[in-house]
Amino acid sequence: MKKFILIINCKDQSGIIAATTNFILKCDGNITYVDQHVDHQEGVFFMRLECTLNNVEIQKEDFVKSFNTVVAHKFQMDWRLYDSDSVLKMALFVSKYDHCLYDILGRFKSGELKVDIPFIVSNHKDLKPIADSFGIPFYHVPTSAETSDKAQLRHLELLKKYNIDFIVLARYMQIIPKDIIAVYPFKIINIHHSFLPAFIGAKPYHSAFKRGVKIIGATSHYVTAELDAGPIIEQDVVRVSHSHSIKNLIAKGRDLEKIVLATAIKHHIDQKVLVYSNKTVVFS
Amino acid sequence: MKKFILIINCKDQSGIIAATTNFILKCDGNITYVDQHVDHQEGVFFMRLECTLNNVEIQKEDFVKSFNTVVAHKFQMDWRLYDSDSVLKMALFVSKYDHCLYDILGRFKSGELKVDIPFIVSNHKDLKPIADSFGIPFYHVPTSAETSDKAQLRHLELLKKYNIDFIVLARYMQIIPKDIIAVYPFKIINIHHSFLPAFIGAKPYHSAFKRGVKIIGATSHYVTAELDAGPIIEQDVVRVSHSHSIKNLIAKGRDLEKIVLATAIKHHIDQKVLVYSNKTVVFS
Amino acid sequence: MKKFILIINCKDQSGIIAATTNFILKCDGNITYVDQHVDHQEGVFFMRLECTLNNVEIQKEDFVKSFNTVVAHKFQMDWRLYDSDSVLKMALFVSKYDHCLYDILGRFKSGELKVDIPFIVSNHKDLKPIADSFGIPFYHVPTSAETSDKAQLRHLELLKKYNIDFIVLARYMQIIPKDIIAVYPFKIINIHHSFLPAFIGAKPYHSAFKRGVKIIGATSHYVTAELDAGPIIEQDVVRVSHSHSIKNLIAKGRDLEKIVLATAIKHHIDQKVLVYSNKTVVFS
Amino acid sequence: MKKFILIINCKDQSGIIAATTNFILKCDGNITYVDQHVDHQEGVFFMRLECTLNNVEIQKEDFVKSFNTVVAHKFQMDWRLYDSDSVLKMALFVSKYDHCLYDILGRFKSGELKVDIPFIVSNHKDLKPIADSFGIPFYHVPTSAETSDKAQLRHLELLKKYNIDFIVLARYMQIIPKDIIAVYPFKIINIHHSFLPAFIGAKPYHSAFKRGVKIIGATSHYVTAELDAGPIIEQDVVRVSHSHSIKNLIAKGRDLEKIVLATAIKHHIDQKVLVYSNKTVVFS
Repeated sequence: MKKFILIINCKDQSGIIAATTNFILKCDGNITYVDQHVDHQEGVFFMRLECTLNNVEIQKEDFVKSFNTVVAHKFQMDWRLYDSDSVLKMALFVSKYDHCLYDILGRFKSGELKVDIPFIVSNHKDLKPIADSFGIPFYHVPTSAETSDKAQLRHLELLKKYNIDFIVLARYMQIIPKDIIAVYPFKIINIHHSFLPAFIGAKPYHSAFKRGVKIIGATSHYVTAELDAGPIIEQDVVRVSHSHSIKNLIAKGRDLEKIVLATAIKHHIDQKVLVYSNKTVVFS
Repeated sequence: MKKFILIINCKDQSGIIAATTNFILKCDGNITYVDQHVDHQEGVFFMRLECTLNNVEIQKEDFVKSFNTVVAHKFQMDWRLYDSDSVLKMALFVSKYDHCLYDILGRFKSGELKVDIPFIVSNHKDLKPIADSFGIPFYHVPTSAETSDKAQLRHLELLKKYNIDFIVLARYMQIIPKDIIAVYPFKIINIHHSFLPAFIGAKPYHSAFKRGVKIIGATSHYVTAELDAGPIIEQDVVRVSHSHSIKNLIAKGRDLEKIVLATAIKHHIDQKVLVYSNKTVVFS
Repeated sequence: MKKFILIINCKDQSGIIAATTNFILKCDGNITYVDQHVDHQEGVFFMRLECTLNNVEIQKEDFVKSFNTVVAHKFQMDWRLYDSDSVLKMALFVSKYDHCLYDILGRFKSGELKVDIPFIVSNHKDLKPIADSFGIPFYHVPTSAETSDKAQLRHLELLKKYNIDFIVLARYMQIIPKDIIAVYPFKIINIHHSFLPAFIGAKPYHSAFKRGVKIIGATSHYVTAELDAGPIIEQDVVRVSHSHSIKNLIAKGRDLEKIVLATAIKHHIDQKVLVYSNKTVVFS
Repeated sequence: MKKFILIINCKDQSGIIAATTNFILKCDGNITYVDQHVDHQEGVFFMRLECTLNNVEIQKEDFVKSFNTVVAHKFQMDWRLYDSDSVLKMALFVSKYDHCLYDILGRFKSGELKVDIPFIVSNHKDLKPIADSFGIPFYHVPTSAETSDKAQLRHLELLKKYNIDFIVLARYMQIIPKDIIAVYPFKIINIHHSFLPAFIGAKPYHSAFKRGVKIIGATSHYVTAELDAGPIIEQDVVRVSHSHSIKNLIAKGRDLEKIVLATAIKHHIDQKVLVYSNKTVVFS
């Protein structure tokens, strides 16, 4: 018995669900989960379907070819099929802050994050001991203004060498160049330490303190060319008061950042995030 | 174009979704929303499906008969069909507290709650002026130990006379007799002023204060024969501290009670709540 | 026994608390509550102190004169004294939305909001029946571009006539002219239907939908000359998802708006809000 | 300049705050923070006061003796004085679950938890590698029914040898014997994986699943002789739905457990928790 995840989006129209579920049935499959969404404003249909195929002789390639001919072509679907057993390769970009790194590696080690982490890269050497203690290769790639081209080449080389599927910026604090974004469209996950779109850019906790907000937040989003403006995957908030200094806000925010980033990574790994119109559909 | 809501539960088995969606397609229908859940422990399948039928000549009765023959019988489904245009009749039982009553009537008046409220009944006369100001008939039915049989008969008489679909206990504070529960199985919605199953029974805020909890809650559930033990529809909580007196807890809890009860009512009206094993599936 | 609330702010310096608490003691008073805050960045000290005076012959005027001489002058305090028994007069400005109005009047009627509401004013006639049902005078003051000067005069006239202490904009949706703000500095409470500073201005739910945020909020703040930029008193948020339409966001937001505004009003009535540097200290 | 924290509780009476603040003033001290609470039901007064003494020649012993004579005796205070520079020694008891351990050690390593961790003890060997990677001594003390007396002696020996101030049970899953509780009254912090008092005892996530709650929680409390019934220090909750399996609840709960336990530890370290009547006052 094999398990697959089917992700579909196309123009909203009649008969999509019936055609798709019928196809699965005819492949001797059983649908174990289906979630679907229609954006009525934009007239777009989204579906995420998990199924098991009883006929183990059906290969992924056969399914893909057949579904394309029988269903996808008719409805002009954008679609992808995932083998549930496959494990994605995730690269970690860090800087000097260690809390998100510890959190991700702890979840990784305990089996909560089903992913491979072939390497960690940083523009500083500070966090190398943590990478070492978890037995993960660590690369130091400095990123000054002068060396930025060289850094970008080195990053692309590492990403290619390790066959990386997606990138997580665990408080990396550096802007990702367009050439890397182009290779990983909606596959670079950032954690921003504010409730976006409030407090875009540097030092959001300082801005939050100055504005006197009563709640602070953290936002995980896909990186796009525009700073802190990519599709939001997950957000969370925590209540603060006048009694909290900037230092307190930063400490409170660390817990938010860890949980929001970990949640976004899990949604991405489980193929639960669909992107459109610079927004996300996140199936539960 | 007519809109229907189809609610299904049955033993989990292969082909249910395909058979159902195919049936809709053959009726010249369009599925606008489908949500589905499988309880793998108990092997039960649940589905809620919204569809529009283009053929306005298909009557609800035809659909019911045909679906029974073609689909429901095969999978031994428990199922119901609702006409989206129908408006449920809701009876309000209150006592002396007015906050839930004001909240429900405000939402009703503004069109947020799409429901009919044929009458309000209370064991006290205190809230009659509120019923009057909203133009809703108010019945005073005292419920002392001696008059409880008489009260029950009067309640059943009112419920029948007004053809009531479901009952909301808006802080009614009285135990509903089994004979009424039997007529309205999973159709009596109560609001309990604690985070159930903590603090069952009377004076939960006093118990919460005594135990020194840091969070209080409210729970809306269907009334069953066992006190405060029916299927939970909705819960919410709010943070408190040592600085809150019992009076403060009660005041904070009022806002919880209002929102939790209103949310439960809306889920019930929208046919989004399915009950099984003394639990609920609440589709989003 | 008389109860007073003393609010102080001044430059942070040694001995303030001792001097103040000693003064109370010498007046034969008992301090029932003291809350204090120091903004170390700006070097400002804040205190809110509740006390009861056993000597009923001490008048508010005597206390004020004596505290000024003995304590306030030395520390160059900005300070105010409130008689706990006094009840503030609150004017309600509304437009067409009724949910905040129902909520406030329900809390008022049940005694939760200890305040007087001498009148409700609106630029539309829609909500007059609600004012009537609660027995509160309702004034219709249209506010077109042509009539704005006239409206402002009428507003000032009503505020003066009824001796209003503070104003609540319960989804009034109109910009308050500077001349009214000048008469009520940090005494006009607005509810903005977003998590400020995100989505300033009109139609924040539409902007939130477009940006694809996973959490929406509401913010209550004092009105200043700059739009939606005054000191924040209270904020709250609720989780949303891709499945929520703009209409759903508006419905979910209504509950936030009600609770956030009611909380801000209560803090204001209890003299728990101190304003400085366009921020608030809100004592618990 | 030396910084002290003064913790007081006594019968509520007139003049406590003035007497205390005056005493500090006469020691050439400056009060940097004062928080106070009165439980009016029980007539108990609580105060937590931070102050700096300019006269560095005043020793802690002098202050203690003098305060006892001048202030504490008169009001029959229960009180403690802490040197802000002192660092508490915390013992970690763990079993097989690693998430709370990783979380605590990550916070410890990054300087967020200002504490010493002289050793980690466990009834299993599984987590030894984690202790090793953080360079903290690890002791394996098996705890079968036959060896429980031996285990208790070994625990007491370790606690004494390392001069431990307080104990944290980071999902230790074993009942602490009364003889250890007696040595560490309100100094053993446990994390229980439910929203107490709901779901006391073993397997709370299974009970929560069975009851069909819509919110799950975690509770950190001081260990007392009665199981899961000690004073609650901190609680937090997260929303769940019918779509979450027991496995999902456990995964969601892990994040709650980590944050709730870490928060409780921080409050304890900062001397912000006062215990009375089996409840806590937690100053902010």
